[in-house]
Amino acid sequence: MKVLAEIFSQGEEVVCGQILDSNAAWLAQHLNELGFTVRRHTAVGDRLDDLVGLIKEIAGRADCCICTGGLGPTCDDLTAEAVSIAAGQALQLDEVALRQIEAYFSQRQRPMPDINRKQAYFPQQATRIDNPTGTAPGFAMRIQRCWFVFLPGVPSEMKVMFSDVREQLLSRFSLQPDRLMILRSIGIGESAIQQCLAKMMLPDDVQLGFRAARDEVQTKLLFPGGFSQSELERCVQQAAGLIGDYVFAIDGLEDERGGDLLTVIERGMSLKNRRLAVLETASGGLLAAKCQGRDWLETVLIAKDIAGATRQLAAEPDSGEDLSKTAERLASRLMQLQGVDFALVQLFQGSRDDYQQKDKPITLYNCLKTGAGFFHRQQTVSGAAQTKQNQAALLSLDLLRRTLQNQCL
Amino acid sequence: MKVLAEIFSQGEEVVCGQILDSNAAWLAQHLNELGFTVRRHTAVGDRLDDLVGLIKEIAGRADCCICTGGLGPTCDDLTAEAVSIAAGQALQLDEVALRQIEAYFSQRQRPMPDINRKQAYFPQQATRIDNPTGTAPGFAMRIQRCWFVFLPGVPSEMKVMFSDVREQLLSRFSLQPDRLMILRSIGIGESAIQQCLAKMMLPDDVQLGFRAARDEVQTKLLFPGGFSQSELERCVQQAAGLIGDYVFAIDGLEDERGGDLLTVIERGMSLKNRRLAVLETASGGLLAAKCQGRDWLETVLIAKDIAGATRQLAAEPDSGEDLSKTAERLASRLMQLQGVDFALVQLFQGSRDDYQQKDKPITLYNCLKTGAGFFHRQQTVSGAAQTKQNQAALLSLDLLRRTLQNQCL
Repeated sequence: MKVLAEIFSQGEEVVCGQILDSNAAWLAQHLNELGFTVRRHTAVGDRLDDLVGLIKEIAGRADCCICTGGLGPTCDDLTAEAVSIAAGQALQLDEVALRQIEAYFSQRQRPMPDINRKQAYFPQQATRIDNPTGTAPGFAMRIQRCWFVFLPGVPSEMKVMFSDVREQLLSRFSLQPDRLMILRSIGIGESAIQQCLAKMMLPDDVQLGFRAARDEVQTKLLFPGGFSQSELERCVQQAAGLIGDYVFAIDGLEDERGGDLLTVIERGMSLKNRRLAVLETASGGLLAAKCQGRDWLETVLIAKDIAGATRQLAAEPDSGEDLSKTAERLASRLMQLQGVDFALVQLFQGSRDDYQQKDKPITLYNCLKTGAGFFHRQQTVSGAAQTKQNQAALLSLDLLRRTLQNQCL
Repeated sequence: MKVLAEIFSQGEEVVCGQILDSNAAWLAQHLNELGFTVRRHTAVGDRLDDLVGLIKEIAGRADCCICTGGLGPTCDDLTAEAVSIAAGQALQLDEVALRQIEAYFSQRQRPMPDINRKQAYFPQQATRIDNPTGTAPGFAMRIQRCWFVFLPGVPSEMKVMFSDVREQLLSRFSLQPDRLMILRSIGIGESAIQQCLAKMMLPDDVQLGFRAARDEVQTKLLFPGGFSQSELERCVQQAAGLIGDYVFAIDGLEDERGGDLLTVIERGMSLKNRRLAVLETASGGLLAAKCQGRDWLETVLIAKDIAGATRQLAAEPDSGEDLSKTAERLASRLMQLQGVDFALVQLFQGSRDDYQQKDKPITLYNCLKTGAGFFHRQQTVSGAAQTKQNQAALLSLDLLRRTLQNQCL
């Protein structure tokens, strides 16, 4: 028995195309994983008639609908009003919601503007959904055959709140969720991964998918509910083995192999209780920014190029040696100056103009010095300047990750 | 008289959330610019009933609809069949389309698979739209009140074909494009802006909207086509004046006041030909990362806290003076060490734990030293650690922007 779900986004900025509706895709993925059949996405702007009409339509044809947007304090935020009309239920003040909104402002030592009171009004039979990170609480309620969940449009708030919603949906609907395993990799593209996996015979009912995210490529294996656990683990292991050590984590197994790149590095660094100093060039501060709040990162120096790096470390200038020698020399110097366990030096070859141009690649050179010696990696980075910058930060961190995972340090 | 448009996307990969529907956003923007009022986006998968039903719905309520996807050769590509059913017109072979598809394959020295013949069949009264870069031609036709345009889902093909579609739409509809003015601000929230604007009497036909993006808050004024230019400028000036110097740029006027924060700073710095050194603490490298490739940024130093900053600059330790004095002292030292025109020092008060916790704010302190003296700003920053980090980077840069815009340097 299929449980039909829809996604509904409210906001002129979506309908006018000023922003991509990433909420809809994110929610659809998560509803699918829970075992819902997602049938339709709809986005409308902030006209009350359109909203009321759409809610009535969906109320008659779906079992569940997740709506985002339109819960803010301003005059163009009309969701609660539209639901009230569509459901024929007056809006009423939720005292707890009001106190939460007041607390949000008092924590920030700002008076609550009057217009924010509006965000504490819900239709009579609605159940409040707390918003721990913003001013707009959500709410959920049945209208005709459909269970509606209304969440704010700010993606970070929506995602935090969805973890509560998830539990409620699981207890409200009888779903047989699929199991999604995600192999998270860095430094290898989708089509190369697909070629690695060509030899693999996947069972017919297992779906293979890919997603190229900003900071990683994900290979997704979707197993139907009830699939044998041992067979599942065998499939995942085989796929990970074929892709190789580009895979830095596997999400979905019940062990400690999941997480993003920084989480994986955090596990390795705190286990080994090591401290790191970094010199970054191509990533220009972004490596440091990605490591915000990590205790194992002692110091980061930023330089524009090899000459700048040499100056910063008061090292001998390069006398025509190759890049790997320069990197080793600078890593040794950095380790000595900062008195750390690990020193990571990121250099690149290519002019400033090449860096800024989309169609010109640069050569990235990373060297990590540890007590066990030097670890090197050379890679080509291409794309727009921002893409190069981000890839440089990730690939330097990935050398650290590889060394932590593969070496006895 | 508004000309109502809708966007309709066909594809399981959109409905399941495997891909973001970037076509919808792109088309919506372009339709808006042409003067259409975009009212709704809908995405459905590849079920024939859903497609037929949706086409009938739209045929009764919109003047124009652009549809993407479902024109491929495989069994899940059902758009032409659905249109044929919804419009009550049989599919018939378009000989020209067939020759184009055959030519596509013969140019690539591959035989045309039989299944591709399907792509040359359109409903009887359809007009073909040539596809110069792929196998799937599009088509357009009227159903009830609505002019439908069907394009392939591959973004590159769709975009090339839209340039023909655009000309056809301009000659078919009598359009008067709206004008969108965007006041871009930093350091002030949506609801505070709305309160600032409460005193303002906007003409009834001007629409006010807000958007809280990651790096700024946008206040949007949408003026109908034909609105008086002098009155438009007066409205925009009044709104900008009421919000105050939180506004760093205005997009949509025909002058050089638009752009994001970095663009505005770039204009100021290159005009004045100044060089900057920065010491960042709370933003931990992100300020540097945001300035990637900017020539006016000479050096960035990163420190974890005031003690670290003092060490990095080999300055006298703090002897209980207040934060503004410390910041001034460090800015002077930074300027002296680096020999730059401007020195920007970012400090914060609050423990490392406060920083990492969502509900604990920190106090951010920025000091910019220029030849004209010191400029200070103290602000409270709250939210998750990543939000604090991003806000800190932005607010430090915003002090530079304010000083460049408001002072004779």
